[in-house]
Amino acid sequence: MRLRNKPWAKPLIAANPQWVITSPNEYRGKWQDRFPRKQPLYIEIGMGKGRFIIEMAQKHPEFNFIGIEMQTVATGIVLKKQLEVQLPNLQLICANGANLSEYFANSEVAGIYLNFSDPWPKKRQAKRRLTYKSFLSQYQQVLQVKGHLEFKTDNRGLFEYSLVSLNEYGMKFDKVWLDLHASPDIEQNTMTEYEEKFSAKGQPIYKIEAHF
Amino acid sequence: MRLRNKPWAKPLIAANPQWVITSPNEYRGKWQDRFPRKQPLYIEIGMGKGRFIIEMAQKHPEFNFIGIEMQTVATGIVLKKQLEVQLPNLQLICANGANLSEYFANSEVAGIYLNFSDPWPKKRQAKRRLTYKSFLSQYQQVLQVKGHLEFKTDNRGLFEYSLVSLNEYGMKFDKVWLDLHASPDIEQNTMTEYEEKFSAKGQPIYKIEAHF
Ligand SMILES: C[S@@+](CC[C@H](N)C(=O)[O-])C[C@H]1O[C@@H](n2cnc3c(N)ncnc32)[C@H](O)[C@@H]1O
Ligand SMILES: C[S@@+](CC[C@H](N)C(=O)[O-])C[C@H]1O[C@@H](n2cnc3c(N)ncnc32)[C@H](O)[C@@H]1O
Repeated sequence: MRLRNKPWAKPLIAANPQWVITSPNEYRGKWQDRFPRKQPLYIEIGMGKGRFIIEMAQKHPEFNFIGIEMQTVATGIVLKKQLEVQLPNLQLICANGANLSEYFANSEVAGIYLNFSDPWPKKRQAKRRLTYKSFLSQYQQVLQVKGHLEFKTDNRGLFEYSLVSLNEYGMKFDKVWLDLHASPDIEQNTMTEYEEKFSAKGQPIYKIEAHF
Repeated sequence: MRLRNKPWAKPLIAANPQWVITSPNEYRGKWQDRFPRKQPLYIEIGMGKGRFIIEMAQKHPEFNFIGIEMQTVATGIVLKKQLEVQLPNLQLICANGANLSEYFANSEVAGIYLNFSDPWPKKRQAKRRLTYKSFLSQYQQVLQVKGHLEFKTDNRGLFEYSLVSLNEYGMKFDKVWLDLHASPDIEQNTMTEYEEKFSAKGQPIYKIEAHF
């Protein structure tokens, strides 16, 4: 997802440090301090325009959420929405998820969401995929025991790759969906922007839930 | 696959013990004796009308093949074809694959094929699925080290289940295809009867290659 530059995004983020963190290393091990209530913490890496994480935070006041996004413009768009809804259980991080274990202490996270992550289809780009082993090892570090990874995508190649990568890493699969929107579980599903677009075209949405 | 009874099938099988075995326990550990050449042995469980196993035996004279099928009529249909082509590297077994480890000694088999296995969609039928753990443990026993399981199906529910079941059992995934016929690997593919029917309808064909 490439977004056109929005000159307002950077200053808006800078003006709202209560909602957006740009140097997340400083909060490592202390994220609960940024929320009114100490409760299980779920994070999304690559939240895009934030529909999913905002809706999750609305549906689940009993959990804390952090949306991570490396694009300033996208983060700015999510921040604008958050300034309207002011969800106390939602924080944003504008930074690269590739350094996740610098942002979170061991076992600080209850669950990780990856939604419609960039596919990086070329073989030599495999290292950038959010289900590449170097990412998985960081997820394992920051996740608490039995903490779950949930991954959704429309991209067949990325999902094929990810099934093999998660299996090879030794992750345990809880459930796999090869056409999520044809499954009864769709009633509990929270949509993302990409998901709405691709499922409307009739493309199958793939999903896996797994743990270490 | 339910086939109408063919009265000729049983007598034809009985008359051709050089091609079809109905009491496979007797050959446990001695299958190579039934072939002119000692060479790696591949088996298919549930060969149906046999298109796949016959074509594999034709393409690969350097391997031995055994097609297993529990329906007498289906086995009779494959036998008729084998009587025409007389492939020295193909033997047939008419028996239930659920007792595989009684038919084959430990490490006697180089690879196992499952093609379009019956889906047994109800939860209480899970034990009958050819990717249920009791089957996997027999595959593990009869397969040589690094021997592979290859499984193809059009059935989404069965494939979702099988990904979880193989992973849970600790199998290692070599490769997964979520639309085999859209992949470049289709050139090496050997079709089955069911595969032809379902891929012609435009349904995706799922495949996994895995080992213990
Ligand atoms: C294809 S978009 C999907 C957005 C959203 N999750 C959805 O489903 O609609 C992928 C997003 O992930 C972000 N992203 C990719 N790699 C990232 C990383 N290493 N750290 C943080 N964000 C990343 C991209 O900037 C982009 O906004
Ligand atoms: C749906 S058909 C598919 C046939 C063929 N493999 C194809 O792809 O066209 C499944 C076949 O597996 C056979 N089968 C199912 N369970 C079996 C078992 N436990 N042992 C041997 N054969 C079995 C059935 O009798 C049926 O012929």
